[in-house]
Amino acid sequence: MIISHGTLSAPTEHTGQVRVLLTQIAQATRQERGCQLYVVSEILERPGHFLITEHWDSMQDMHTHLALPGVGEAVAAVHALGITDLSIIAFEAGAPTKIM
Amino acid sequence: MIISHGTLSAPTEHTGQVRVLLTQIAQATRQERGCQLYVVSEILERPGHFLITEHWDSMQDMHTHLALPGVGEAVAAVHALGITDLSIIAFEAGAPTKIM
Repeated sequence: MIISHGTLSAPTEHTGQVRVLLTQIAQATRQERGCQLYVVSEILERPGHFLITEHWDSMQDMHTHLALPGVGEAVAAVHALGITDLSIIAFEAGAPTKIM
Repeated sequence: MIISHGTLSAPTEHTGQVRVLLTQIAQATRQERGCQLYVVSEILERPGHFLITEHWDSMQDMHTHLALPGVGEAVAAVHALGITDLSIIAFEAGAPTKIM
């Protein structure tokens, strides 16, 4: 299983639009093959800074997702809103352990 | 390396207090040995629903953290605010791959 964490920060004047865009991306991506989880959230200590949390069945599924035209369009839309620090890192992850 | 994801939802009347409490927990936990990352965020599509994202050097470091008196107090404070669905799962994770 793959866990991916993305971060980005919105220019103040576009924060509302970024919230809407990220929500649209999340709703579309959850329909894709191999996507177990796609959650977009705003960091409490840093309003306007966002976290994208993804779980995929495999790295292949994530790469298939990344190659979709809609993803390129979403990244272009992110850039058009003045976001310059989009970063995504992925990890191969083992079976989950329930802590609480 | 360990990645942990926690989720919880706040009763509407306590959402503001939960935001403050989670921020305090994050600031304290980041000082602990082995804690690489501790971010608290609010899910865009579900206001009042929160995500806790943690990276630890090892499961041992995470368990040392969980055994601290302050963590028991934090969990008690979470429950005192009417939160009944706190859930945390942890994964052993490999080296990061930069996607973007």
